Amino acid sequence: MATYQAPLRFMRFLLHEVFNTQEMLKKLDIMEDFNVELMDAILDEAANFSQQVLLPINQSGDEQGCTFNEGAVTTPDGFKEAYKKYLEGGWAVMGCDEKYGGQPLPKALHLMIEEIFYACNTSFGLYPNLTNTAIQLLETHASQELKESYLAKMVSGQWSGTMCLTESHAGSDLGLIKTKAVEQPDNSYLISGTKIFISAGEHDLTENIIHLVLAKLPDAPEGSRGISLFLVPKFLPNEDNTPGERNTVTCGSIEHKMGIKASATCVLNFDQAKGYLIGEINAGLKCMFTMMNNERLSVGMQGVGIAEVSLQSATAYALDRKQGRHQGSKEAADSIIGHADIRRMLLSMMSMNGGCRALAAFAGNLHDVSVHHNDEAERKKSERMLAILTPVCKAYFTDASFDSCNNGVQIFGGHGYVKEWGMEQLVRDVRITQLYEGTNGIQSMDLLSRKILADDGRGWEEYKSELCAMIKEAEEVNVLGKDCTRVRQAMGNLSSVTDSLLEDGKRNSGLVGAVATEYLNLFGTVTLGCLWLKMAAVSINTGEDDLFYKQIRSSCAFYCRHQMATVFTSVNRIMAGSHTIVSPELEEFELTTLVN
Amino acid sequence: MATYQAPLRFMRFLLHEVFNTQEMLKKLDIMEDFNVELMDAILDEAANFSQQVLLPINQSGDEQGCTFNEGAVTTPDGFKEAYKKYLEGGWAVMGCDEKYGGQPLPKALHLMIEEIFYACNTSFGLYPNLTNTAIQLLETHASQELKESYLAKMVSGQWSGTMCLTESHAGSDLGLIKTKAVEQPDNSYLISGTKIFISAGEHDLTENIIHLVLAKLPDAPEGSRGISLFLVPKFLPNEDNTPGERNTVTCGSIEHKMGIKASATCVLNFDQAKGYLIGEINAGLKCMFTMMNNERLSVGMQGVGIAEVSLQSATAYALDRKQGRHQGSKEAADSIIGHADIRRMLLSMMSMNGGCRALAAFAGNLHDVSVHHNDEAERKKSERMLAILTPVCKAYFTDASFDSCNNGVQIFGGHGYVKEWGMEQLVRDVRITQLYEGTNGIQSMDLLSRKILADDGRGWEEYKSELCAMIKEAEEVNVLGKDCTRVRQAMGNLSSVTDSLLEDGKRNSGLVGAVATEYLNLFGTVTLGCLWLKMAAVSINTGEDDLFYKQIRSSCAFYCRHQMATVFTSVNRIMAGSHTIVSPELEEFELTTLVN
Repeated sequence: MATYQAPLRFMRFLLHEVFNTQEMLKKLDIMEDFNVELMDAILDEAANFSQQVLLPINQSGDEQGCTFNEGAVTTPDGFKEAYKKYLEGGWAVMGCDEKYGGQPLPKALHLMIEEIFYACNTSFGLYPNLTNTAIQLLETHASQELKESYLAKMVSGQWSGTMCLTESHAGSDLGLIKTKAVEQPDNSYLISGTKIFISAGEHDLTENIIHLVLAKLPDAPEGSRGISLFLVPKFLPNEDNTPGERNTVTCGSIEHKMGIKASATCVLNFDQAKGYLIGEINAGLKCMFTMMNNERLSVGMQGVGIAEVSLQSATAYALDRKQGRHQGSKEAADSIIGHADIRRMLLSMMSMNGGCRALAAFAGNLHDVSVHHNDEAERKKSERMLAILTPVCKAYFTDASFDSCNNGVQIFGGHGYVKEWGMEQLVRDVRITQLYEGTNGIQSMDLLSRKILADDGRGWEEYKSELCAMIKEAEEVNVLGKDCTRVRQAMGNLSSVTDSLLEDGKRNSGLVGAVATEYLNLFGTVTLGCLWLKMAAVSINTGEDDLFYKQIRSSCAFYCRHQMATVFTSVNRIMAGSHTIVSPELEEFELTTLVN
Repeated sequence: MATYQAPLRFMRFLLHEVFNTQEMLKKLDIMEDFNVELMDAILDEAANFSQQVLLPINQSGDEQGCTFNEGAVTTPDGFKEAYKKYLEGGWAVMGCDEKYGGQPLPKALHLMIEEIFYACNTSFGLYPNLTNTAIQLLETHASQELKESYLAKMVSGQWSGTMCLTESHAGSDLGLIKTKAVEQPDNSYLISGTKIFISAGEHDLTENIIHLVLAKLPDAPEGSRGISLFLVPKFLPNEDNTPGERNTVTCGSIEHKMGIKASATCVLNFDQAKGYLIGEINAGLKCMFTMMNNERLSVGMQGVGIAEVSLQSATAYALDRKQGRHQGSKEAADSIIGHADIRRMLLSMMSMNGGCRALAAFAGNLHDVSVHHNDEAERKKSERMLAILTPVCKAYFTDASFDSCNNGVQIFGGHGYVKEWGMEQLVRDVRITQLYEGTNGIQSMDLLSRKILADDGRGWEEYKSELCAMIKEAEEVNVLGKDCTRVRQAMGNLSSVTDSLLEDGKRNSGLVGAVATEYLNLFGTVTLGCLWLKMAAVSINTGEDDLFYKQIRSSCAFYCRHQMATVFTSVNRIMAGSHTIVSPELEEFELTTLVN
C-alpha cells in the first residue's frame, strides 16, 4: 500500500507563516474563531480521519470498483461505512452556510483538507465534493424556496449533489447540448435528455441525489446563450422534506474507466423528469460556473493530493531500496535515494508539489477576500486575480501531478508497474484530473483568452504587482541572490510575452489557440518561482534554522535552477507560435494522410 | 477499438529513399535478394497479418489478461490461434540463421515489422520477440552442442525463449543476484533461486520454454564480474529433440500489472534445475548483453508502434469530433482537428514518432554494417555508433511515446479515459517500456557514462560527423534555411555540452548522474532534428510534390520550431547540473523529513 501522512507541517507553514491566514481573516471581520490552534486542530482531525478511514479502502476500492445492476449502483466495500463516519465527523458541513447547518471555513484551509481527503482516496472524495460545490451554487443562485427544500439535507450530507453538463456530442462545447426543458403550469419543468460522465450520478451512499442539470428551453437562443439550469432530484421531496415520489431520472450504465474506479461515472437518462429552474432563463451556464470554478480548484487539489502520495511513497521506497553504490561507498549496495537521478526526480516532485500547495493557499485567501472584504474594490481585485488563478490551479497542478505520479512509478522501477505497490493506481487516478471540469487545453484558453486578453490585462497587471512584491521581499533577504535573478528574469519573460499577446492576440484567435498551453505553463512556472522565493524568504526571516526551513530553501534552490529552466522552452515556443501551428506550411497539412 | 493501419508509405520512404537500404545491403554482399519489391512485399504481409490477426485480440486480451492456476499460465482467448498463424506465416524464422531454418532479414526492415506487430498487440509481440532475441544470443555465444539441441526448435517457434535476470532485490543492479549454479560431474549445472518479472516465463503457446538465466557459481567474484549465464529448459530435450523430462523450474505466480496484461510476467522458481553454461564462466552479463541490446531496440519499437496507434486514433477522432467553431465558421460546430491546440498535440505526436522511426531505420542499417561489412574498421565504427544509439532508441523513443499516448487521451477528452475507446490501454501498455530492459534512467547513464565518456568521445566524434553531414545535405537544398539554422545551433549546444562533460564528467560521477537524463533528452532531440532535415531534403530532392512529401516538410518545420525548443531547457539544466542535485545545499537535504 502507498505511504502517506498528511503534510501538516508544510500546511501550517503556509497558513500561519507564509500567508498569515488568521490575520487576513481578522481584517475581513469574519471567522474570527479561526485562530492558529483551531486551524491546526481541524487539520489534525482531517489527517486522522482520512488516514484511518479513507486510505485503507483506496486500493480495495480500485480493485473492486463500482457495480451496476438494473439502474442501481453499488459502491465498493467499506464506502458506505466510511461515508457514515464522514458525516459523523462533521466534514460534510464544512464551508457551508450556517443558516442550513453549515460551518464556515477559510478557503485555504478547506483546500488543504480537500487535498488530504483526495490523497487518501480520490474516488471517495468526489462524492461529498460534488455535494459541497452544488451547495455553493444553490446558496448563490437558487430561490429561497429551493434553498429551504434542499439545502439542509445536502449540508448534512444526507442528500448528495451532481453536476450534469456533458452529453455524448457536447463536452468542451456545451452550446451543443440537446437536453430539453419544457415549462409546466406549476412553474416546474419537464427535463428530457441524456447526460454522460456524471460523477456520483447514482450510488448507494445517500437517500437522495440532487442533480443540477443544464438544458434548453424550446425557444432558447442557439449556443451557450440558450442554456438554463435546473435542479432535478432523484426523489421529489415530501412536504416534510423526506424523499417522496421517484422522479424519472435513471442511471443507464456506468463507465469502465482507467482509474477512479470507485467513483461512479454515470449515464443519466432524464425522461420528462420534474425539475426546477435555478437563476434566470438562459443564464444557466453563468450559474453553473459558481460550481465549476470551485470544482476546478478542487480538481487541482486532487492532483496535489495524489502527487503527494507518490512523493512520499517514492521517498520511502528510495530510502529502503538498495541498488548500486555511491561514489566511495564500501557497501554491497546503497539506498537509491543517494543516486543523483533519483534525487532529481524526488526534488522535482517535491518542489512542484510544494509550489502548487502554496499557490492553492494563496488562491484560497484571495477567495475569502473576494467574498467577504468590506471594500468592493478589494473584493473585485481579489475576484479578478482568483479568476486568473483558477485555470492555472486546475491545469498546472494536474499536469505537474501527472508527471509526479509517473516519476513515482519510475523510481519504483518494475515494481511501480505492478498493482500490489499502489503506484500505478496513482497514475491512473490522477490522469482524469487533466480531463474533467474542462480539459487542460480549455483551461489554457480560458486563462489567456478570457482572463488575460478579454480583461485587457487589468487583472494581469494587479497579479503581476503581487508577484513582483514577492520577488522584492526575497531580494531584501539578501541570501537568495541567484534564485531571485532567475525568477526576476523569468518574470520579465512572462511580462513581455503577455504584453506581446495583448497586442497581437485579440486580432488573431488562431495564435491564441496555438500558444495558450505553453503560456499557461510559463505562467504557472513563474508563479511558483515567486512563491518559492516568498517561502524561502519567510524561512530565513524566522531566524530559525531547523531542518524544515533548510528544506524549504533547498526546494526553492532546486525549483529556481531546474524547474525554471522550462521557461526557455516556453518562451521560445510561444514566440515561434505563429510560425508553427498556424503557419501556411501547416495550414495545408492534412493530418489524415501521412499514414499510408 | 483503436484505429490503425501500418504506416507503410513512411516505412518505404525511409528504407528506399532516405537510407537506401537495398544499396547498403549490396555493398555488404549479403541479402542481395532484398530488393525494394521484396521488402515492400514483406511489409505488406506484416501489415495484413497484424491488422487481421493481432489487432482484433488486443483489447480483449487486455480485458481478460493471463490467468494462473497451479503453476500453469493460460493466455487470453485467441492467443494460441494467433500464435499458430504467426508460425504458419513464417514470421518466427525472421532474422535467424539459415543453418537452423531461419531467414535473414535486414535489421531496419526487421525493426519496422516489429513496430507493426507491437502496434497491433504489444502483449502478443513479446512472446515471439523474446524467443527471437534469445536465438540471437545462442547463435553468438552458445556451444555447438547447445545450438544443435535448441536452435532449430526455437527458430521454428515451437519452443520459446526468456531472459531471467531480475530478482526481487536485484533489478538495476544485477551484481546483487543470489541465484546459484553448482557444477555437476556431467558438466551441467544445478540452478537454484527465484527470478521475478520474467516475461513469457510460463504460458500455453509453445511445447517448451528455454530460459536464459543469470546465476553465480559458489566461488564467483563479488558483483557483476561474478555472473554466469545458463540455458535452463522447461523440459529437458530427448535425444530426438522432443521435450522430455520436466525440469525443476516452476512458475510461482504472475504479476497483476498496469498494462500488457496479456503478457505473462512470471515469478520463476529454480529448484536445482538442470542448466547448461553459455559462454565463459563469470562472463554471463556480457553474453546477456547481446540479447539485451536487441531487446532495447525492440522496446523502442514497442513505443513507436503504440504511439502510432495513438496518433492515428486521435487523428481519426479529431476529424470526426465536432466541438467549437473555427474563426469565421458558420457551422454549429467544426471538427476539433482545426483547433490549434489539437493540431499542436497531433503534430507533436507525428513529428516525434516519425523522427523516432527514422532513427530506428538508421540504427538498423548500422547494425547490418556492424555485423556484415568486410572491413573491420567499418564494422567497428558502426558498432560504436550503434552502441551509442541503443540507449537513445530505448529511452528517447519510449519517453516520447508515453507523451504521445497521453496526448492521444487528451485529444479524446473524457472519452480517452473510458476503456471502450482503447486510448487509455495505450497509456497503460506503453508505460512499461520506460521501465523494463533497464529503466530510462539507466539508459541515460549508459549513454553518457559508458558510451560517451568511457570511450573518450571517439564514437561520439564519428556520430557527430554523421549528424553534421545530414545538416550539410539539408543546407545544400537551400529552402530549409531557418530549420537548418535551428538544428545547427542545437548541434553546437550538444557539442559543447558533450565537450564540457568529457572534461569534467570523468572526475565527477555525481555530476554525470545528475545530468544524464537531460543529456539523453538533448542528444535525442538534436538527433531527430538532423534526421528530419535529412528527410525534408530527400523529399525536396525527389522533385515531386505530392502530399506525402509536403507533410514530411511540414513535420520537419514543426519539429525544428516546436520540439527543438526543448534544447534550451536541456542545456540550461545540464549547465546548472552541478548546482542542483549535487550542490552542498542539497547534500544535507533529507528527503524524508519534509513531510511533517
